[in-house]
Amino acid sequence: MNTLETLGWTISDWLSAHQQNEGNGHLEKLVDAVNHVNDCAWISRLSASDLKQQLEHLNARREQGDSLPLFGVPFAVKDNIDVAGWVTTAACPDFAYTATEDATVVAHLKEAGAVLIGKTNLDQFATGLVGTRSPYGAVSNSFKADYVSGGSSSGSASVTARGLVAFALGTDTAGSGRVPAGFNNLVGLKPTRGWFSIKGVVPACRSIDCVSVFALTVVDAVQVAQVLGEQQDLADAYSRKNPNTAPTGMPERPRFAIPSKLAFFGDELMQAAFMQARSELEKMVDLVEIDFTPFTQLAELLYQGPWVAERTHAIGSQLIEHPEAMDATVHRIVAKGMDYTALQCFDAEYQRQALARYIQQQLSEVDALVVPTSPTIRTLAEMQDEPILYNSQFGTYTNFTNLADLSALALPAPFRADGLPAGITLIANAWHDFALADFGQRWQAHLALPMGATGKPFQAMVPTFKPVAPGAVPVAVVG
Amino acid sequence: MNTLETLGWTISDWLSAHQQNEGNGHLEKLVDAVNHVNDCAWISRLSASDLKQQLEHLNARREQGDSLPLFGVPFAVKDNIDVAGWVTTAACPDFAYTATEDATVVAHLKEAGAVLIGKTNLDQFATGLVGTRSPYGAVSNSFKADYVSGGSSSGSASVTARGLVAFALGTDTAGSGRVPAGFNNLVGLKPTRGWFSIKGVVPACRSIDCVSVFALTVVDAVQVAQVLGEQQDLADAYSRKNPNTAPTGMPERPRFAIPSKLAFFGDELMQAAFMQARSELEKMVDLVEIDFTPFTQLAELLYQGPWVAERTHAIGSQLIEHPEAMDATVHRIVAKGMDYTALQCFDAEYQRQALARYIQQQLSEVDALVVPTSPTIRTLAEMQDEPILYNSQFGTYTNFTNLADLSALALPAPFRADGLPAGITLIANAWHDFALADFGQRWQAHLALPMGATGKPFQAMVPTFKPVAPGAVPVAVVG
Repeated sequence: MNTLETLGWTISDWLSAHQQNEGNGHLEKLVDAVNHVNDCAWISRLSASDLKQQLEHLNARREQGDSLPLFGVPFAVKDNIDVAGWVTTAACPDFAYTATEDATVVAHLKEAGAVLIGKTNLDQFATGLVGTRSPYGAVSNSFKADYVSGGSSSGSASVTARGLVAFALGTDTAGSGRVPAGFNNLVGLKPTRGWFSIKGVVPACRSIDCVSVFALTVVDAVQVAQVLGEQQDLADAYSRKNPNTAPTGMPERPRFAIPSKLAFFGDELMQAAFMQARSELEKMVDLVEIDFTPFTQLAELLYQGPWVAERTHAIGSQLIEHPEAMDATVHRIVAKGMDYTALQCFDAEYQRQALARYIQQQLSEVDALVVPTSPTIRTLAEMQDEPILYNSQFGTYTNFTNLADLSALALPAPFRADGLPAGITLIANAWHDFALADFGQRWQAHLALPMGATGKPFQAMVPTFKPVAPGAVPVAVVG
Repeated sequence: MNTLETLGWTISDWLSAHQQNEGNGHLEKLVDAVNHVNDCAWISRLSASDLKQQLEHLNARREQGDSLPLFGVPFAVKDNIDVAGWVTTAACPDFAYTATEDATVVAHLKEAGAVLIGKTNLDQFATGLVGTRSPYGAVSNSFKADYVSGGSSSGSASVTARGLVAFALGTDTAGSGRVPAGFNNLVGLKPTRGWFSIKGVVPACRSIDCVSVFALTVVDAVQVAQVLGEQQDLADAYSRKNPNTAPTGMPERPRFAIPSKLAFFGDELMQAAFMQARSELEKMVDLVEIDFTPFTQLAELLYQGPWVAERTHAIGSQLIEHPEAMDATVHRIVAKGMDYTALQCFDAEYQRQALARYIQQQLSEVDALVVPTSPTIRTLAEMQDEPILYNSQFGTYTNFTNLADLSALALPAPFRADGLPAGITLIANAWHDFALADFGQRWQAHLALPMGATGKPFQAMVPTFKPVAPGAVPVAVVG
């Protein structure tokens, strides 16, 4: 499979190939390769005959003059996202069903001409940040096979990092769109909650779930985001309209908050890598140290509070009463959701609201908060010893984000001394997604690291969006 | 007390009196009268000596040149709102405590120069829409003493309707700021959730509680609202900033939705009165009939769903375990909050979100929804027979409002044939408060009914706010 010419192609590489009428041939080779390798990153794959049919359909649409901004660009989706005619497993065979409709996000991508190559492995029911909690196999890190890929969007991160697809969709409730990006040298765009529709996505915590994007570059992630977030989905009760009051760009020299104390749980390699990222950042931004305690308190609420009952609700009592049908660790976590009371629910909600308000206030005083994407990484073997503790450590810098209604962007950053990736994440208030991306593409161009695990050099691209820095945004004040 | 010259004075009447240096004398007579009549609308009252001290302080501030837009205007607050140095009872003596700080709304009113005359009776813990659920006595309707005042803000409505104060604060979770306005021929402004701070207010359902305003005129209610809502309260986690994207006025001929089927529970007098209001409305607006089912479904969630656990949470298990310390009906309701699970909580939350989204979409297509404020009214005696059923009927057109994040304005409307008031309520999406008020003051001028229960003729006033109709609002769209 290493002979695939397309490995590590960006969206624009694929668009160029199609312009030269070479794209279809490459897609055929890609699908053939994907179907002939045993790779637990995939749960299901596109067949050669289905590809042929899709390409014919796409060509017909192109001839009709349809707007197809992602014409023939291969992508993957996490297997908790519905695709009409495909089985959705959520990594639980006993839960599996054949979807009759595309999830709204999938429909948008197909409409834009993108080609779905397959559905990817995940921590069962998107419950985990590791990539090991699946009967379809533990997904390996794309740099070192004995390390975890991160999860829950393990497969989507893996196939993007290895350059099999130009981009992939994940979901991100507690950090599932960021931790695997960090572990695989990828961009992970965790949008403002409600920007991308969650209709047709198996819920984890429905009130805070997000669909996320993995890509090799920020420019690619934004291009996909623009397709996904073009309009509010009225069929998704949690979909929201962008009020367009937040800046879409960052100042020339932004001001970032950084936690004054950082936990790395003894992982000195991760700590050293973050220190290196910090020195690089200091060339581009002003850093202000802040007290991270409220963020940690909010993060702890997510898995130690009644939100776990949302997972229990989504899975349903029928399955939960059959532990043998579920991953043991996932079952252990979600079964606890049965025990919480409504009183505890509201008590936690009041705490959440107070902490979220405090955090939003803190973030309104800076352009972003920067944190390590994960404080540490573990081997597949280590995860077997401490499946819950190590997992929860991975969420230190991600778990609070959706509870506080924030936007986030995981970015590649200087590698660890052992050759494993060590990403950073930028976090800002809701609807600052484009502002984060504006800085993200500057950062990626500054570091110019090879893309994902492909070994291909980073190529600076012209952003597809026009950043507008704060202060330059005309906000009408009336009344 | 009927000889009080100030009975039924509006804010501007009081301001004029103070300009002529006659205000203080009137306030002294008012406080004297309030202290010498047995009136269960009050739970506590300002003493003559405290008034004297306050007036001295106010005069000193005026001499210093402080801005005092409500200089010497008398008001009352519901006794679930803290006033420093006063006892807060929430109509439950065993819960009572002396507040050490003013609630933010009280602080704002004092800062503006208003004078607190007393704290008013309520349905215990603001749980009820009747005005009978209080150990301090059942508050009578200000028109017919054998009928209910409505609640839970019974006392605040009563003292405003009888013209003892120029305005009063209530709270409104399920309709407590509207039903008593409807039953007493008052304006009841139920703001967008989060516009007025709830810091220092005993919670009912903290996530959806609002402080509300009772006044004789829309112009007065808006004047108070402008003082209360001038800035976001960062000390209240549920306080929100007005995004200033909603219109602040209505078109010359607005378009209102009206339920195609209306329930009056056999109350033909209320039905006839609403039909009369409808004919008057048709002179000023275009009416579009809509299906009210989703509104009813959402209304039913409030008391039949896990939100009752918020009340249980606020009251605390210690009190709930002592039924003898509580109103029997209130206890019966809030004790149920112990039984709900977190699973039920999230299940209801998903239903709420879906219904709210549908309702918001419906309301985005009209300038407002118009409904009867209450479908029926009952005597104090009748309430003893059916304390829960009749109460829940009163909430038919109010219970859904805060769950759907809407703004509302209860308005006087043509009276019933038996001489009881029969108000209407305008409802719109969040932050449409000023638009509702714009129409509200036109409506009040159109009907020119006597004010409250004072018998004083309505006097058209110049609004203190400048309405801007939809379409005229410059909303910036960026990115």
